[in-house]
Amino acid sequence: VKRVLVTGATGFIGRQMLAPLVARGFDVHAVARTPETTATEDGVTWHAADLLDPMQTARVLNVVRASHLLHFAWYAVHREYWTSAENVRWVEASLRLVQRFTELDGRRAIVAGTCAEYDWTHGFCSEAVTPLSPSTLYGTAKDALRRVLEAYAAQTGLSLAWGRIFFLFGPGEHPERLVASVARALLAGEPAVSSHGRQIRDFLYVADVAEAFAALVASDVRGAVNIGAGEPRTIASVVEMLARASARPELLRLGALATPHDEPPLVVADVRRLRDEVGWTPSRTLDERLAETLEWWRTQRLA
Amino acid sequence: VKRVLVTGATGFIGRQMLAPLVARGFDVHAVARTPETTATEDGVTWHAADLLDPMQTARVLNVVRASHLLHFAWYAVHREYWTSAENVRWVEASLRLVQRFTELDGRRAIVAGTCAEYDWTHGFCSEAVTPLSPSTLYGTAKDALRRVLEAYAAQTGLSLAWGRIFFLFGPGEHPERLVASVARALLAGEPAVSSHGRQIRDFLYVADVAEAFAALVASDVRGAVNIGAGEPRTIASVVEMLARASARPELLRLGALATPHDEPPLVVADVRRLRDEVGWTPSRTLDERLAETLEWWRTQRLA
Repeated sequence: VKRVLVTGATGFIGRQMLAPLVARGFDVHAVARTPETTATEDGVTWHAADLLDPMQTARVLNVVRASHLLHFAWYAVHREYWTSAENVRWVEASLRLVQRFTELDGRRAIVAGTCAEYDWTHGFCSEAVTPLSPSTLYGTAKDALRRVLEAYAAQTGLSLAWGRIFFLFGPGEHPERLVASVARALLAGEPAVSSHGRQIRDFLYVADVAEAFAALVASDVRGAVNIGAGEPRTIASVVEMLARASARPELLRLGALATPHDEPPLVVADVRRLRDEVGWTPSRTLDERLAETLEWWRTQRLA
Repeated sequence: VKRVLVTGATGFIGRQMLAPLVARGFDVHAVARTPETTATEDGVTWHAADLLDPMQTARVLNVVRASHLLHFAWYAVHREYWTSAENVRWVEASLRLVQRFTELDGRRAIVAGTCAEYDWTHGFCSEAVTPLSPSTLYGTAKDALRRVLEAYAAQTGLSLAWGRIFFLFGPGEHPERLVASVARALLAGEPAVSSHGRQIRDFLYVADVAEAFAALVASDVRGAVNIGAGEPRTIASVVEMLARASARPELLRLGALATPHDEPPLVVADVRRLRDEVGWTPSRTLDERLAETLEWWRTQRLA
């Protein structure tokens, strides 16, 4: 049986990750610093461990003895993660995790990367072509981690894939991020502010990100794979869709927030590897997912 | 007073490093897994610590409280270091070391890099121009470490320099490496074998490498700095010099060893940063240093 250890399992993506892996027949083990349970529920066995601690990392790897590793855990405090020195600690912890996993006969590791590894001045991000030139400590840390792990995998025979996550949204998103903040304002009947919105981005619903990763885990595809919808959309069209779905379009304030002068005009994923090699595409449209997300925020208001 | 902690202080370069730092007025603290003493000798205070162990790393940093860090420690087993998974462990340990040093108010860190970070197909290695494209796990690990540390330094204000070491030789070199093996054969009156020797390289005497690093530590220069002589020499001219100095030129067997098909024709350092910004150049010629090295190997035979 294929046993997968999922790190960061209580995170924004991680918590969406477990059901799709169970559905694909994996024996799923989830690790988090403070899981709600350390029992087995819905086919998922939970473990408590702080992966910044070498002893706790070794212990959970020894207990689980997974054949597959899906590594999402990272420093993820809103805004601060771009520049925090904690990124360096997570490079260290991630190198340790993947090494120990491999030494314990782990066969395949999938690690969460980021579109911030690319040089965004190129806009269209293609795994084999677009230069990697991260402009933040976060992007640099992920890029450097991948460089070491790919060389390590080539040397040891570990099967390694690296999923580069683009822009995402959905239930559980930080309330100050774009889709969440606009949805919340609309539902509260307050002005929903955004930048001019002409930037073109590649958005994917968080549960679809998780489905894509589950497909990647189950595949034999190695190397970097963009995790995106591959659908270029202006930010304006995204927030306008939310405004329509909320039936309060008059609340939208495009241009009320300044646009940073270095904001790239277009950041879109080339999804050919994900579609043709991994064999995954989203099952629903972005507009359907945006409407679902608005409804989720409505339930949060009532709760 | 400026206090420097030197890691890898019993290594090939590290052991040459201490006197030049003392001469420049540093309070020198040396760390090694198994130093010969843990007392203070010749102005150097020795500490025993295994830097792969987080606790021991924290302890030595806490005890020393250095303003400067000079980090040479790495996995260095002859030949094996190119591909060993230990390289990954040293990325991990080095990230930890530099972070903890910085958190304890360390001001300036100098880390040993390698010419193997460069894409050797370009031959002439210039810090600002030559693409970085390491072809080995060793080179990849050093390159990735530098990427993370430079972004970390930019974020935290740490003054960071990265010395890229080229080809070196001298007392204490592994006996199977080029200069050592040819010198030993000549002194033993045995055939001294080498490849065709038409490859052009940049050799620097190990004590000069150490002098260059001492100058770099004492400077304010940041970023990558090539540590080389900047003097292109064929391998043939190097071994012929040794043969002449030994007065046994008839023992030389140029071409007796096969040359790997992917051996780059030229790997030479652009030393303008080292010369013009750090202000260091070698005080003796390469031929003088080769002759000295031959004499050192002669003393080893007699010992």
